[in-house]
Amino acid sequence: MDRLRIGVIGLGWFGEIHCEAIVGIPTLELAALCTRTPDRLAALAGKFGVRKTHRDYRELLADPNIDAVSIVTMWDQHTEPTIAALEAGKHVFLEKPMASTIADCHKIMAAAKRSKGILQVGHICRFNPRYRMAKQEIEAGKIGKIVAMSSRRNIPAAWTPEILNKIGPIVGDAIHDTDLMLWFTGDRIVSAYAQTVDVRGLKYPDIGQTMYRFSSGATATLETVWCMPEKTPFDIDERMSIIGDDGFIHIQDTFPNLGIVSRDKLQSPDTTYWPAFEGSRGGALREEFSYFVACAQRGEPPAIGKPEDAAAALEATLAAEESARSGQVVHIGSRLGN
Amino acid sequence: MDRLRIGVIGLGWFGEIHCEAIVGIPTLELAALCTRTPDRLAALAGKFGVRKTHRDYRELLADPNIDAVSIVTMWDQHTEPTIAALEAGKHVFLEKPMASTIADCHKIMAAAKRSKGILQVGHICRFNPRYRMAKQEIEAGKIGKIVAMSSRRNIPAAWTPEILNKIGPIVGDAIHDTDLMLWFTGDRIVSAYAQTVDVRGLKYPDIGQTMYRFSSGATATLETVWCMPEKTPFDIDERMSIIGDDGFIHIQDTFPNLGIVSRDKLQSPDTTYWPAFEGSRGGALREEFSYFVACAQRGEPPAIGKPEDAAAALEATLAAEESARSGQVVHIGSRLGN
Amino acid sequence: MDRLRIGVIGLGWFGEIHCEAIVGIPTLELAALCTRTPDRLAALAGKFGVRKTHRDYRELLADPNIDAVSIVTMWDQHTEPTIAALEAGKHVFLEKPMASTIADCHKIMAAAKRSKGILQVGHICRFNPRYRMAKQEIEAGKIGKIVAMSSRRNIPAAWTPEILNKIGPIVGDAIHDTDLMLWFTGDRIVSAYAQTVDVRGLKYPDIGQTMYRFSSGATATLETVWCMPEKTPFDIDERMSIIGDDGFIHIQDTFPNLGIVSRDKLQSPDTTYWPAFEGSRGGALREEFSYFVACAQRGEPPAIGKPEDAAAALEATLAAEESARSGQVVHIGSRLGN
Amino acid sequence: MDRLRIGVIGLGWFGEIHCEAIVGIPTLELAALCTRTPDRLAALAGKFGVRKTHRDYRELLADPNIDAVSIVTMWDQHTEPTIAALEAGKHVFLEKPMASTIADCHKIMAAAKRSKGILQVGHICRFNPRYRMAKQEIEAGKIGKIVAMSSRRNIPAAWTPEILNKIGPIVGDAIHDTDLMLWFTGDRIVSAYAQTVDVRGLKYPDIGQTMYRFSSGATATLETVWCMPEKTPFDIDERMSIIGDDGFIHIQDTFPNLGIVSRDKLQSPDTTYWPAFEGSRGGALREEFSYFVACAQRGEPPAIGKPEDAAAALEATLAAEESARSGQVVHIGSRLGN
Repeated sequence: MDRLRIGVIGLGWFGEIHCEAIVGIPTLELAALCTRTPDRLAALAGKFGVRKTHRDYRELLADPNIDAVSIVTMWDQHTEPTIAALEAGKHVFLEKPMASTIADCHKIMAAAKRSKGILQVGHICRFNPRYRMAKQEIEAGKIGKIVAMSSRRNIPAAWTPEILNKIGPIVGDAIHDTDLMLWFTGDRIVSAYAQTVDVRGLKYPDIGQTMYRFSSGATATLETVWCMPEKTPFDIDERMSIIGDDGFIHIQDTFPNLGIVSRDKLQSPDTTYWPAFEGSRGGALREEFSYFVACAQRGEPPAIGKPEDAAAALEATLAAEESARSGQVVHIGSRLGN
Repeated sequence: MDRLRIGVIGLGWFGEIHCEAIVGIPTLELAALCTRTPDRLAALAGKFGVRKTHRDYRELLADPNIDAVSIVTMWDQHTEPTIAALEAGKHVFLEKPMASTIADCHKIMAAAKRSKGILQVGHICRFNPRYRMAKQEIEAGKIGKIVAMSSRRNIPAAWTPEILNKIGPIVGDAIHDTDLMLWFTGDRIVSAYAQTVDVRGLKYPDIGQTMYRFSSGATATLETVWCMPEKTPFDIDERMSIIGDDGFIHIQDTFPNLGIVSRDKLQSPDTTYWPAFEGSRGGALREEFSYFVACAQRGEPPAIGKPEDAAAALEATLAAEESARSGQVVHIGSRLGN
Repeated sequence: MDRLRIGVIGLGWFGEIHCEAIVGIPTLELAALCTRTPDRLAALAGKFGVRKTHRDYRELLADPNIDAVSIVTMWDQHTEPTIAALEAGKHVFLEKPMASTIADCHKIMAAAKRSKGILQVGHICRFNPRYRMAKQEIEAGKIGKIVAMSSRRNIPAAWTPEILNKIGPIVGDAIHDTDLMLWFTGDRIVSAYAQTVDVRGLKYPDIGQTMYRFSSGATATLETVWCMPEKTPFDIDERMSIIGDDGFIHIQDTFPNLGIVSRDKLQSPDTTYWPAFEGSRGGALREEFSYFVACAQRGEPPAIGKPEDAAAALEATLAAEESARSGQVVHIGSRLGN
Repeated sequence: MDRLRIGVIGLGWFGEIHCEAIVGIPTLELAALCTRTPDRLAALAGKFGVRKTHRDYRELLADPNIDAVSIVTMWDQHTEPTIAALEAGKHVFLEKPMASTIADCHKIMAAAKRSKGILQVGHICRFNPRYRMAKQEIEAGKIGKIVAMSSRRNIPAAWTPEILNKIGPIVGDAIHDTDLMLWFTGDRIVSAYAQTVDVRGLKYPDIGQTMYRFSSGATATLETVWCMPEKTPFDIDERMSIIGDDGFIHIQDTFPNLGIVSRDKLQSPDTTYWPAFEGSRGGALREEFSYFVACAQRGEPPAIGKPEDAAAALEATLAAEESARSGQVVHIGSRLGN
């Protein structure tokens, strides 16, 4: 069995976490790194023992010994490298949000159709075993028809001052829950209403509360607070309720399954998404990359992380942000990708 | 010390619970009962050993030996008996919602101003020790300025088929959280947006999701599901998060502090609002009535359960229901009571 | 209706809390205070507006205008004032543990039999609505026959340096769970095994773990840690599981129903036992005193807080402490009070 | 990269789960199956598409194309096949408990020392990310010195009637927590006291409560109830508290991170140990096997799942069972493996 040689494009904090996941997967070889910043490039090349380093992603894509790339650039800089990688025949793992406009999503999807490489968008929550189990149970008819949902995905203020200058909490985080709700219902969203609150005067508001209406009549609220106070005892306060007419599902992750009280603080660290043990990252991120490798090696487009699903989730969150700006309900006319 | 002699007007399921609370309070005497239905009147008179029974509340109000009344009629039949009782100089404990229109609230408030009796509206949640403690901590500046809130108040489907023909979940239940949010913020609500879902085809929809904007810029969502599936393991799934810019408060009542798994089911019974022990009701309901008696005996209007607060909560929930019908955001123009 | 005039004997931190509860109860009048320390006596007399103050409890007991006393002296100084009060015909509310030896318990019970006053021992947990509901459900047969139990009652280290020089966690706190387990099973304890850990070198060890065998064959473990680390997010971590052969009950109090994250810490304050609102104490402590007054006014010995029950709980915890010292299982021969 | 060809010996319910985990791991090939029961052998060979089937494990071990075996026979039938496999030079993954006597553990360890194959004992909890994170934090000094621990591992009565005729809850399940406690403390257990309860009259008692003393003075209780009532809403009620003198850790798995209320029941299914998705088992079991393969391919003995650790955990649980039979505290004299 051959290992898939992968390059990582974009080496911010999450690009580094991608690398830490990749090195723990026996079917993957971290073969190349790319970022514009020379110091960062040298530092991560040293940390992971990677010889091939590039400051221009086109160089990396020109290397015939690279089978796949992971693209972790800023969300509004996804489109060009993704299309170029697909045109170069590479398998592409693209972080969420897929792009910053629906038009770009369409361009990417068109490139994917022409490529011999596969394209998977990194909607990691679908690899959280709790949501995965929920999906199985919903498919098995355990809760009947979904009539209402609500979600929360709140994170500490200390994490977000930098990121709030690049992306807001609705497109940045509620997109996870939007994608999950679309997955669970198998439905489409017909309208969005949202309110934001600017707490710290950064580029994007710190708080988003969103309400969706689904085509079936189901309703949903999504809470995303990116300014949880300093002593907040969890890394992520993540919850979802899915109410059917014959049952319901409640998910609460990552709190309170692990609580650590030390001299200084109470903490509930992530053990679901990318816990680090002995130098590499496990959890849902490892599962997600393992799935990507398996699809790539079979040459089959992934059933999880499909571009059209990622685009639908983006469309709804962009509509919510537009609603927050205008104060009006935003209607979402047509099914994406048709 | 004299006991306050009280009559109960309206003897539905909650009127009976009022009686069960009253008989456990040493400063109160359950002295008269009133309902139009003769069988029910006789049954409860027997159960509680009450001699004075009336089918017309005006008779009861004419009795000079009655000091106070508790009014537990249907929410749209509050106005007449309340005004009559106040005009008769009785102390009035009035169940929430205060009335069914803002115009009626104004009439009741005007009657209260002219009366020698006090008027307290039964917003029982303010006597839940958790919300009360939250209010103290907020007043003490522990969480800074409130920027976002969210609440849930979901109840089993089995409880609601009858009540959903009389009142919907937003005015019926989200009014509790609306009142609490107004109390915690000391602010007013400037707009409401809501979505409802009709699951069972009853007169009112089973589910309401509401979003408020406060004058300060704070945002809030309120979830009220009156059709929780049969095996739901709690009597009320009641939660509230209050996020400040310097701290936050999370309340979760009544689940999971007490879970009882019997042969047939898992249940988390109410121990907060009106738990029954040895023939009478304790909890917040007893506290609320005890507070009412203390205010009445001092002849001071209550600081908790003020009519103007109750009217403000009603106004916001009526606006939310209007929004759910129209699909539009509803703006709430003016401060109530000015 | 007359108010019961009560004096409080012993004015440590919990004596003061007794006073704060008493002043909130309309059927009680805080009429006298007693402690040996003049400054403390003056301070609390001022705080509660009490004119009758005594440094010798015999003076207080000689006052014919006092109907009842609450005895909150150190646990090994309960016997003399309790017997004297009963001999003086006062109603006595006695804090737990009832005494420091079984011989003293017998003396107190004998005095109670001869007295016209009633005697109630302050096993407050029986007034926690969750345990009370559990007892009702067990009596109703909801969980079948009890086969195993486990409890936890852990408190912060910051609270205990002083108290650990007076009493240890097994007799001091596991006695609550011992009493509850005896109540729930209606059984007696036949053996005790316990281990303690001395963490801070105080007079009593900080930690106790106890195991009981009941006459029915049921088994139980009790955890009492009096040195929970500084950042522990709750005032009491209190849990009990009661496993029957046909159901089970889980109680978790007071965490997590209320969590308050402020700038400095996460806290889960008590809202069950003696929450303070507007200058007086509510919760189980108020319920307990109200019950005491009702019994005293009817002249009936209390069914909750019976001396023989309190003595049985003491006997088991003393046996556990003896086991912890000897390293051996301690067998408890005979039923107390027979 | 070559795949490790593995055979599974013992095809009960958990042997099948081993197979389901193995087929999802790209570095493993499920190459052979062995059980005495022809029907079961044929059924699983068909299900997993395995051609090599054996009714005698010696045949399987004689096959030079088999690199490794997983031994999932009854716990008292581990010794012979394990020694034979090690003597045949195979890598061995051995389920816990390692054996049924300490003498057998010593024989297995001796065989492992002589073998070119590695030996890993399946203490799966060490691959639960929550315990793994706890271990990291303890090693990093976050909670200071461990002074007390407590654990619970309770499972539904419906699962256990058959298994209780083969093994009891202390050796069968408390061994997990025993192993974890030994891991966390890095200490040894010097005494054990335990009580069991026989609820259903099966070969082994349904309930075990165990108390350990560690060499450092730390104390621990372990609860294992194998008869949780029918409506119990979780697959495993698994909790551990680790109290240090400078912090503490609380772990609660798998409840309540996922709750599913269907028409018939409330359930909290396992998403930690071996959740099944798309035909194979993930979670800790997959991690554990992946770790085994990595160790085997490097030819290094595993640092997790070491035979001497497994033997120490067995020794303590056997002492606890002896204590439960004798009613006496059992002292554990010497460090195992020295």
